[in-house]
Amino acid sequence: MIITLKQNATAEEVSRLRSELEDQGFIIHPVEGTRYNILGLIGDTASLDARQIESLDFVDKVTRIQEPYKKANRKFHPDDSIINVGGALIGGGHFAVMAGPCSVETPEQVLETAKACKEAGATILRGGAFKPRTSPYSFQGMGPEGLELLELAKKETGLPIVSEVMDISQLQYFDNVDMLQIGARNMQNFTLLKEVGKMKKPILLKRGLSATYEEWLMAAEYIMSEGNEQIVLCERGIRTFEPKTRNTLDVTAIAMMHELSHLPIIMDPSHAAGMSRMVRPLSLASVGGGADGLMIEVHNNPAKALCDGPQALRPDQFNSLMKEVQALHNALIECTNC
Amino acid sequence: MIITLKQNATAEEVSRLRSELEDQGFIIHPVEGTRYNILGLIGDTASLDARQIESLDFVDKVTRIQEPYKKANRKFHPDDSIINVGGALIGGGHFAVMAGPCSVETPEQVLETAKACKEAGATILRGGAFKPRTSPYSFQGMGPEGLELLELAKKETGLPIVSEVMDISQLQYFDNVDMLQIGARNMQNFTLLKEVGKMKKPILLKRGLSATYEEWLMAAEYIMSEGNEQIVLCERGIRTFEPKTRNTLDVTAIAMMHELSHLPIIMDPSHAAGMSRMVRPLSLASVGGGADGLMIEVHNNPAKALCDGPQALRPDQFNSLMKEVQALHNALIECTNC
Amino acid sequence: MIITLKQNATAEEVSRLRSELEDQGFIIHPVEGTRYNILGLIGDTASLDARQIESLDFVDKVTRIQEPYKKANRKFHPDDSIINVGGALIGGGHFAVMAGPCSVETPEQVLETAKACKEAGATILRGGAFKPRTSPYSFQGMGPEGLELLELAKKETGLPIVSEVMDISQLQYFDNVDMLQIGARNMQNFTLLKEVGKMKKPILLKRGLSATYEEWLMAAEYIMSEGNEQIVLCERGIRTFEPKTRNTLDVTAIAMMHELSHLPIIMDPSHAAGMSRMVRPLSLASVGGGADGLMIEVHNNPAKALCDGPQALRPDQFNSLMKEVQALHNALIECTNC
Amino acid sequence: MIITLKQNATAEEVSRLRSELEDQGFIIHPVEGTRYNILGLIGDTASLDARQIESLDFVDKVTRIQEPYKKANRKFHPDDSIINVGGALIGGGHFAVMAGPCSVETPEQVLETAKACKEAGATILRGGAFKPRTSPYSFQGMGPEGLELLELAKKETGLPIVSEVMDISQLQYFDNVDMLQIGARNMQNFTLLKEVGKMKKPILLKRGLSATYEEWLMAAEYIMSEGNEQIVLCERGIRTFEPKTRNTLDVTAIAMMHELSHLPIIMDPSHAAGMSRMVRPLSLASVGGGADGLMIEVHNNPAKALCDGPQALRPDQFNSLMKEVQALHNALIECTNC
Repeated sequence: MIITLKQNATAEEVSRLRSELEDQGFIIHPVEGTRYNILGLIGDTASLDARQIESLDFVDKVTRIQEPYKKANRKFHPDDSIINVGGALIGGGHFAVMAGPCSVETPEQVLETAKACKEAGATILRGGAFKPRTSPYSFQGMGPEGLELLELAKKETGLPIVSEVMDISQLQYFDNVDMLQIGARNMQNFTLLKEVGKMKKPILLKRGLSATYEEWLMAAEYIMSEGNEQIVLCERGIRTFEPKTRNTLDVTAIAMMHELSHLPIIMDPSHAAGMSRMVRPLSLASVGGGADGLMIEVHNNPAKALCDGPQALRPDQFNSLMKEVQALHNALIECTNC
Repeated sequence: MIITLKQNATAEEVSRLRSELEDQGFIIHPVEGTRYNILGLIGDTASLDARQIESLDFVDKVTRIQEPYKKANRKFHPDDSIINVGGALIGGGHFAVMAGPCSVETPEQVLETAKACKEAGATILRGGAFKPRTSPYSFQGMGPEGLELLELAKKETGLPIVSEVMDISQLQYFDNVDMLQIGARNMQNFTLLKEVGKMKKPILLKRGLSATYEEWLMAAEYIMSEGNEQIVLCERGIRTFEPKTRNTLDVTAIAMMHELSHLPIIMDPSHAAGMSRMVRPLSLASVGGGADGLMIEVHNNPAKALCDGPQALRPDQFNSLMKEVQALHNALIECTNC
Repeated sequence: MIITLKQNATAEEVSRLRSELEDQGFIIHPVEGTRYNILGLIGDTASLDARQIESLDFVDKVTRIQEPYKKANRKFHPDDSIINVGGALIGGGHFAVMAGPCSVETPEQVLETAKACKEAGATILRGGAFKPRTSPYSFQGMGPEGLELLELAKKETGLPIVSEVMDISQLQYFDNVDMLQIGARNMQNFTLLKEVGKMKKPILLKRGLSATYEEWLMAAEYIMSEGNEQIVLCERGIRTFEPKTRNTLDVTAIAMMHELSHLPIIMDPSHAAGMSRMVRPLSLASVGGGADGLMIEVHNNPAKALCDGPQALRPDQFNSLMKEVQALHNALIECTNC
Repeated sequence: MIITLKQNATAEEVSRLRSELEDQGFIIHPVEGTRYNILGLIGDTASLDARQIESLDFVDKVTRIQEPYKKANRKFHPDDSIINVGGALIGGGHFAVMAGPCSVETPEQVLETAKACKEAGATILRGGAFKPRTSPYSFQGMGPEGLELLELAKKETGLPIVSEVMDISQLQYFDNVDMLQIGARNMQNFTLLKEVGKMKKPILLKRGLSATYEEWLMAAEYIMSEGNEQIVLCERGIRTFEPKTRNTLDVTAIAMMHELSHLPIIMDPSHAAGMSRMVRPLSLASVGGGADGLMIEVHNNPAKALCDGPQALRPDQFNSLMKEVQALHNALIECTNC
């Protein structure tokens, strides 16, 4: 950590700060510049609050050199983490496809969709039972019953299931769910993060709409600091100024998160753009960019339910996309030697 | 609601959509353009999901004319709401000043700060017992004990208290707290919003870091839809590209929220910029812009605790700011007749 | 265009607006709602300023249904445009690779880099002679001499050249340059756009750092409205909240621009992230996402010039990337029938 | 400047970098950490390109300690600059009001508006002759004739005039204009900045829609580095996610720019929100926040021209706003002693 002092910092102020920091076990290296003096701090600064030091009258700014996350940090865990979701592997070369309906609605819908997804090559079944909705007047999901329908589909197809939990009070219903999803709006619901950190289930951690990479990894760190290190990151689009799409899928996140962390990262092209016709190009871009998997919304019969499935693919669309995903993925692997 | 159809929409598709919407009680006015046809929808469209209709292959886009919020809407509640927090009024001409420490730390700190705030003119005491922190390795607040210290200060000074609740599991400790604060990161914690919506206490609803005005009002609507209409909005800075300040205080929110809603709005200049020296100019800008109140961090002795209080004012700074706030506020009121 | 009237709009106001608009040749369809009345406008509204109508006291808002761009609009030009840059084709299935140094520095540098780029499969040589720099104290480019070096490299290798023009006063030097680049900061330099619109050369139009798709297409429209329809769009990263990369490459732009416009779109992964190690994953993501080409910075000897080439690939890195790009591109084409 | 080295940096690499930098006259202070080594650079680093050093394989990141701007920097010019625009002073306690029509249209419009503005207390007349418009199909301004009308109004009222120049080719028409405005879209038109830097006229430099404070000051530095130090900064709203207003006025810019620079800063509430009814609250917020002046659009007769003046005040509205501005400004000055 680098502390830049103001020009008018007095010797006494600086010496008080130095001894306080030395008492905390840090080693201090002062560097005198022409217009600024700086203090270089050596030691484990993860627990140090940069802004608190920055608030001192005689400090100009504080620059963090060391990342504030440890357990999620690639530097202390050089090998790729491989996450096992009821038998389906993610990361370290294992490509996962989570597919299924946005919301669980009926037994037929879930079962038919699940079967179609499995046939096309999905490795995990997704489906929402608790739905975070912007409006209190919108459908809020089927709740516990929805989870039961997913379990039924799991029995039928053998696909492990992933579903979103919005609050610790709902955790009691997730015993038979293989992977818990933390939604974008809950990425900094610290109470929830800590609680799932005490569980033994893999967690799918979606990125907040305006979260930086570091904030996202700090959210993972919350979970990991409680003992649960089975985390898969999921990029689902960030908020930008573009009104024509709901959000903007950030493919740079794939390579950057692979550099910063050992955790796998999958992409959600369905939520990102919010339109089914963008799912194909964004999925293929994600594969090209090196993603460890995809999360795609599929609905068995969007035509029947007239007003449904803004971003869902039909099973036949999903099936043909899977072929392209596979072809691109193979080309990428083969070419590593080309 | 305006539904713009694609050029290649077939008569059958359009007629199916029309009859489906008519079955839901809407009246449809079609308008034929040169390159687009549109359907004008008349009726209460608040519960209609625009994106679901937009997902139809033959629909180009859907434009909402009517706001999706009702109870928070100025159109159905033309008079300013006045919120009563343990005797302190906010809105409709009543200016509130919430002041106190960021985190509750010790009895002395809370009491001394509370007394100084009251003397300077604060009307409500603020203080954090449960703290949402970006890092799991940072101090997470004193918890229930912190609330007890606030209650002690309330008894001593008579100031009503406001404190943040992060999760429904913490609500049990807030019986003696006069106003519950929902933090920026929890603005869309819908489970929490619904739960405080069932309570009889006033709620301070902070704006999310990247939330639009409509998303903010929809969060208020979540609370109000459960029966609790005592809400004060609090703008605390939005995320922008500027690295020199933590966030950017949006003063336009004051006049816009007054136009869109009847709820009062106060400003938090301490969290916005994240530096104590910006609190004065941002407070005075807020008063000029028509805010219904301010929320300001004050710490009795930032010098003693060397590394504390990045954004807190000292009592003497707060005192002199209050004089300026008062002078500006008076000038504004007098001049309405000038 | 949809004009939503305020509830308190008087019959006289509305009738005055209607007759004014009818005088301009529009046909008006009024629709009466429960709480709003709207006017549907039929006719060519591209030249109508929505904000001017919105400024009327009795108007609530104005919604554009028809896009304000015509010549760049896919709707009026359904076939892909294919742009010919000195023999190299872009768009409609033709994939272009523009490669070369960020700044032209010496004859050796340009020649060696150009040869290496050609060998690896580049179809166009890029190089900057006029450089837009954030600081007046940074190197501003070689100017006209730099263009001469590029022409030399063109003679040696046969590669057509593209280079950036920053101001109409520089246009005199670009006679032998095959394609003019308009940089991100100049995307709304309307004087420059109009002037290159009068030329017969293809234009590479980079997207502004915070520009929407519509603003970008309106910039293209400026050029096209003067007669020059040979435009290639270039996405080079948008500004986001992420500090770890310079900008964020928006791959959704590829499919969206293909939908909205007939103009080809290429991607610049070098400028987007601003780090050479991100060029490979972003290039492959761009190919997967359907881009019509890439623009990549290559430098013959970054090691020699110690402090140079933040985002440039070495020739051998570029060569091996080109193989992967080719493999992915082939897999994509083959699979269209899979 | 702080250079953080990667863990795997070899002694040879570091020593090469050190000697290269020492050859450029910098003094290097190495600090060895547990997981990182850093190099502290002492000397004038303004001309050093941080990103170029960052591109080295063995460098982790580069942190600038010293600001890259000098002439605009408060540190080297502690006193407020006071800019004289044809007799009207701005900065250092002098409050300026620039008012007038958005576009110059007719002699009557300009003259009537100018007279009304002067009577109400404006100190400078604004008016656009060259208009940057998003669409090539919109009115592009009257050009040189428009400037002549402004000069006429100047003769009649004695008010100095400010008008926007979009390109160096237009500079020939600005001989009798007292202050040149550089628009937001041209904030980084470096050719134009350098050219007006050679002139002897005061410059009004608007902030780019997504520009940081540093980028804005670097644009000022471009002008100042050529010799012209008469610059007034103008904040006109930044792009945010809020769709209900055109842009978001950043009042924090006032205090921050006063801290970073000696240049005066005025606010443009008309362009910021893009609606006349927001001009009053945003003007008063700007005064409270400590602005050195305001720029406000006024139109003599918005009612006559039915579709005009989205954001313009009528003369009577402007007149009553000026009284409030004056009252607030006085209260602020008086209270400095309260």
